[in-house]
Amino acid sequence: MAGNSFGNIFKLTTFGESHGLAIGGIIDGCPAGLSIDFETIISEMQRRKPGQSAIVTQRKEEDEVKFLSGIFEGKTTGTPISFVIENTDQKSKDYSHIKDIYRPSHADYTYDKKYGIRDYRGGGRSSARETACRVVAGAIAKQLLQNIKITAYVSSVGEMQLKKHYSEVDFSEIEKNPVRCPDAKMASEMEDFIKSIRKEGDTVGGTISCVIQNVPTGLGEPVFDKLHAELGKAMLSINAVKGFEYGSGFAGTAMRGSAHNDSFNENGSTKTNHSGGIQGGISNGEDIYFKVAFKPVATIMQKQETIDTKGDKAIAEGKGRHDPCVVPRAVPIVEAMAALVIADFYLLNKISQV
Amino acid sequence: MAGNSFGNIFKLTTFGESHGLAIGGIIDGCPAGLSIDFETIISEMQRRKPGQSAIVTQRKEEDEVKFLSGIFEGKTTGTPISFVIENTDQKSKDYSHIKDIYRPSHADYTYDKKYGIRDYRGGGRSSARETACRVVAGAIAKQLLQNIKITAYVSSVGEMQLKKHYSEVDFSEIEKNPVRCPDAKMASEMEDFIKSIRKEGDTVGGTISCVIQNVPTGLGEPVFDKLHAELGKAMLSINAVKGFEYGSGFAGTAMRGSAHNDSFNENGSTKTNHSGGIQGGISNGEDIYFKVAFKPVATIMQKQETIDTKGDKAIAEGKGRHDPCVVPRAVPIVEAMAALVIADFYLLNKISQV
Amino acid sequence: MAGNSFGNIFKLTTFGESHGLAIGGIIDGCPAGLSIDFETIISEMQRRKPGQSAIVTQRKEEDEVKFLSGIFEGKTTGTPISFVIENTDQKSKDYSHIKDIYRPSHADYTYDKKYGIRDYRGGGRSSARETACRVVAGAIAKQLLQNIKITAYVSSVGEMQLKKHYSEVDFSEIEKNPVRCPDAKMASEMEDFIKSIRKEGDTVGGTISCVIQNVPTGLGEPVFDKLHAELGKAMLSINAVKGFEYGSGFAGTAMRGSAHNDSFNENGSTKTNHSGGIQGGISNGEDIYFKVAFKPVATIMQKQETIDTKGDKAIAEGKGRHDPCVVPRAVPIVEAMAALVIADFYLLNKISQV
Amino acid sequence: MAGNSFGNIFKLTTFGESHGLAIGGIIDGCPAGLSIDFETIISEMQRRKPGQSAIVTQRKEEDEVKFLSGIFEGKTTGTPISFVIENTDQKSKDYSHIKDIYRPSHADYTYDKKYGIRDYRGGGRSSARETACRVVAGAIAKQLLQNIKITAYVSSVGEMQLKKHYSEVDFSEIEKNPVRCPDAKMASEMEDFIKSIRKEGDTVGGTISCVIQNVPTGLGEPVFDKLHAELGKAMLSINAVKGFEYGSGFAGTAMRGSAHNDSFNENGSTKTNHSGGIQGGISNGEDIYFKVAFKPVATIMQKQETIDTKGDKAIAEGKGRHDPCVVPRAVPIVEAMAALVIADFYLLNKISQV
Repeated sequence: MAGNSFGNIFKLTTFGESHGLAIGGIIDGCPAGLSIDFETIISEMQRRKPGQSAIVTQRKEEDEVKFLSGIFEGKTTGTPISFVIENTDQKSKDYSHIKDIYRPSHADYTYDKKYGIRDYRGGGRSSARETACRVVAGAIAKQLLQNIKITAYVSSVGEMQLKKHYSEVDFSEIEKNPVRCPDAKMASEMEDFIKSIRKEGDTVGGTISCVIQNVPTGLGEPVFDKLHAELGKAMLSINAVKGFEYGSGFAGTAMRGSAHNDSFNENGSTKTNHSGGIQGGISNGEDIYFKVAFKPVATIMQKQETIDTKGDKAIAEGKGRHDPCVVPRAVPIVEAMAALVIADFYLLNKISQV
Repeated sequence: MAGNSFGNIFKLTTFGESHGLAIGGIIDGCPAGLSIDFETIISEMQRRKPGQSAIVTQRKEEDEVKFLSGIFEGKTTGTPISFVIENTDQKSKDYSHIKDIYRPSHADYTYDKKYGIRDYRGGGRSSARETACRVVAGAIAKQLLQNIKITAYVSSVGEMQLKKHYSEVDFSEIEKNPVRCPDAKMASEMEDFIKSIRKEGDTVGGTISCVIQNVPTGLGEPVFDKLHAELGKAMLSINAVKGFEYGSGFAGTAMRGSAHNDSFNENGSTKTNHSGGIQGGISNGEDIYFKVAFKPVATIMQKQETIDTKGDKAIAEGKGRHDPCVVPRAVPIVEAMAALVIADFYLLNKISQV
Repeated sequence: MAGNSFGNIFKLTTFGESHGLAIGGIIDGCPAGLSIDFETIISEMQRRKPGQSAIVTQRKEEDEVKFLSGIFEGKTTGTPISFVIENTDQKSKDYSHIKDIYRPSHADYTYDKKYGIRDYRGGGRSSARETACRVVAGAIAKQLLQNIKITAYVSSVGEMQLKKHYSEVDFSEIEKNPVRCPDAKMASEMEDFIKSIRKEGDTVGGTISCVIQNVPTGLGEPVFDKLHAELGKAMLSINAVKGFEYGSGFAGTAMRGSAHNDSFNENGSTKTNHSGGIQGGISNGEDIYFKVAFKPVATIMQKQETIDTKGDKAIAEGKGRHDPCVVPRAVPIVEAMAALVIADFYLLNKISQV
Repeated sequence: MAGNSFGNIFKLTTFGESHGLAIGGIIDGCPAGLSIDFETIISEMQRRKPGQSAIVTQRKEEDEVKFLSGIFEGKTTGTPISFVIENTDQKSKDYSHIKDIYRPSHADYTYDKKYGIRDYRGGGRSSARETACRVVAGAIAKQLLQNIKITAYVSSVGEMQLKKHYSEVDFSEIEKNPVRCPDAKMASEMEDFIKSIRKEGDTVGGTISCVIQNVPTGLGEPVFDKLHAELGKAMLSINAVKGFEYGSGFAGTAMRGSAHNDSFNENGSTKTNHSGGIQGGISNGEDIYFKVAFKPVATIMQKQETIDTKGDKAIAEGKGRHDPCVVPRAVPIVEAMAALVIADFYLLNKISQV
């Protein structure tokens, strides 16, 4: 109920504050007999990691994942897979500058109102650090899904937008630049732009597009737990996300039915896939694609007027090393959450018929 | 698991096919002692009802709601509230024209793939008729929420967009026109446009905006079950919805942090509310606002190429009376789903502190 | 949360007060493609029905089950199966004798304390009438389970105990007498005893034994959701149940490990089955057997001292037609709840391995 | 779904194999602002710990509990409380004697059948070591419950039975002897008996009684999630448990209604409390009492015929240091599980009325 779990069959529960002893999680419901490739997990973690390039935060996080249970001789046993990631530098910080103030557009104020108490050492549960646990679980979900391919990429930074349809994108370009935009020229411009933003001590938002290929038909439940509704919830649960659209999305609202409807080919595929691979909440076997909107990071290196916990005026000013733009590092997080959704429905769908 | 329930504490489970004997639902977890105003439920149902104006489907649905349990002498008893809405005209139809074909952008194909069987009489569970049950439950949730005010309105039809910020909208205008757009002039143009679309046998999409006022602080859970994540899931579970954004939404991705951050006033409110009333997944007491994208209705009164259940080419052609644009009737559904989300978190939040 | 649902995958939610308009339920998660034999459902309902013999209540209940959804052309469609049973005589009763008093060992007092309001017309949700819905759902679960055979019988009435081990019982004897005790002589004595109890206006308790045969290995989850833990919860959720034991049960506590341990035969079966077909919470393929204790029915045809809702002394006296002993009619209810538990784990177990 | 979680509002999820790196758990849903007394947690752990007396296993377990999150400056923050207990001696063992055989009445066989793979190093998830996590969570639940007093004690070992009604028991005697039987003379006899059993390399079962005092009225949900049904499930989920009864229990089945019914006193209490503090599944404010049956421990220090994983005959023989009788150490586990059930309903009941 307290919302630290995601999924029904393949269920991830996470714990941990950004500056506590450790973060971690439990995956309950992963089927037995899955061979785990630990290298893949590490490489997914590398993609999310701070310090990987000049345009992301230079904060150090070791992010070493220690598995405590549920895997035996390299295979899942059907019992809970638990893992812990220690917060190696959690003791050294000075939090006096944020202890008694509410940072604008952070969760400080709402935590105090909800809980009457707040772990003021960093963002607590609202820190993006929590998403490291999602990437671990997502990396295991991806291994469960085998042939299903989940690919995310940056499709805009600020007002710079990649206008290509997903089907025109060369996925092999994504990891070739630090922005993770699959267009070398635009990526280079985005990179310069992010650097200039950082120099100003400011931040900027962006969007991530994601494509899921080779999805079996039948995933998703038709009423409240529609496949795209769960994908939407998954994405909106990522820090800083403000919007979600799939298939034709917001642009599709301006279309007419006669143009929007996806005519069938004789093999059951469709000619246009405005539906984004989902009809009536259930996958139809076509590519699933969606877009996620991220706001600019709230921590900026500028002085901001705010209030303290007593309601008096105060000044907030970011310290340390923060991301000027969150989308490059959020790409593996989007993929991880998509993998969790698909894994859950993939397992559930095995029992949809007698 | 099969996804016919929504909510955790205040939980709605719905049942029923569009052309079966009846549709209905069970609300489990409504606190005891709530006085039920049945007139309000009826008036919410009237807003969703077919045939209410010239621009919606002229199909007749009596939509009489019969409560079977959980209410005694006008008050909720804490036991499940169940209700049934009979499908009065379910026997008379002829479905031979859709029995063996897959209608483009409907759920016919995906149901067959998922279940191996399909109730071909209309849309089954994927019919918008199912949303009548949501409106019933939402009307009760609204009564539970008392002072919290949930208001939705049409903000675009096709390319015609109401450019006003929600705070500039006069809510009293909404129900004065059949489009439910709170701008008389634009509403009139939208109405004409919808009529012209219908004449062509075509359909068009649109967007609905929703505002939730007087929300207490503390609603929502900070990690996976963020308030906006559940709102997003709720909206995306409504038929024909393709996108969701809240607060600054997709437009916010182009902003800089220094402009986007919501500075606090001394009373804890914010100067700009780009956050849309939610920070870190938890309500901060400001207005919550969001927008929902609806695709054009898939059933059009034109011939469309498609395939039959054997994979051979076939022609689909809509019959009967369908909505040329779904948004006017979807306004109360958006409100109902918002009410269900808020009611659930409102109850849960009562136990967030010792 | 409010506890009107049972099961995870194959989930039953029930509603309805004993003297409201109707009772009923929704089964969500029954796989698609199951042929439903309605005759079997009716015959299970007959076994539970009042008035079936001279030793049960002579109250009339029509108990006609009307299915509203989820079954099409005789087969389940994968969508929610809902059903309603009208309370045909709910309007005619006079409840003035119980409206303001708390009947001893009923739920009147606790409902008032919990909810602050009580539907005083009969037992409300605590009436055994609610169990009719369990029998409907159990009858469908039994059909899903095909070869798995679930058999319950009366093993004691008051102090009269059938001393036979379940393996010595001739199941074909069970339905030959109104007590449902598979020993003609003892059944006859029990019948006489129950009749004499009824003449005194009194009631008596008893036990029901249940055997589940042909269970596949692997059902049940090893930690909190052990197969026998869910069976125990299921049985304890039936009205008037005070205890549950499986396998060697309470008697097994006096045994030594060397005698209690079940040695394996070479085919994996065991020589003694003191484990009752479950080891570590998971079925091992042997017969599952358990016993359920029912207290004497609380409604007696004698004057009892009690208090009224103001806390003043009052007299309670049963009216109408009640069961002098609940176990004969509870046999199909025990089977139904067992079927729900097994069905749930049966489906879940399909996804325990990759 | 995989059943490693217990509770709805106050939810414990556990992980860990007996011989993996660590065991541990996450408590999600503990309200914010609860001061945690770590000494109490340690002392509860001491009561469960191996090696505490001459009649329990002499195996060493450090059982140091490390909290990783959810507690800040001594108080709960409303975020997940996670904890880890390292398995300090997990690397040194030799498991060759159990790797390829199925120990009688253990879960080896059923795990292999269910998962197709088994962590053969000890009991895996079925080891009683998992219950350490329950004791940690139970100790926190007890602190949440403040004035509610939960007391368990040994009421029988083998055929030696404490015949006293719970109300005659002097609770202060319980912890004065290693058996935890609140009767010095019987405790001494039980102790001698357990020692003699151990000398034979054998084991014996027993029962634990539990009393919950100062329970508020209104806890429990009236239909499937009856308070005693959840208590029963909780107890049956503990290793080696074979039966559960509450209030008058199995003995009550032989009583007549006229004797069994609990007449009210004018203050709402009852004269007899055969109901065991629960009516219609809801607490009535009286003492709740129940009894739990434990089978003899399956691991005996004798040679037993069994089969290996290929189905060939083999010999199993216990090695190491095991409990000759589980009940003395299971007393705090019974209390912990009771505390989890009560805490869950205690929180849920706060929202039963508007």
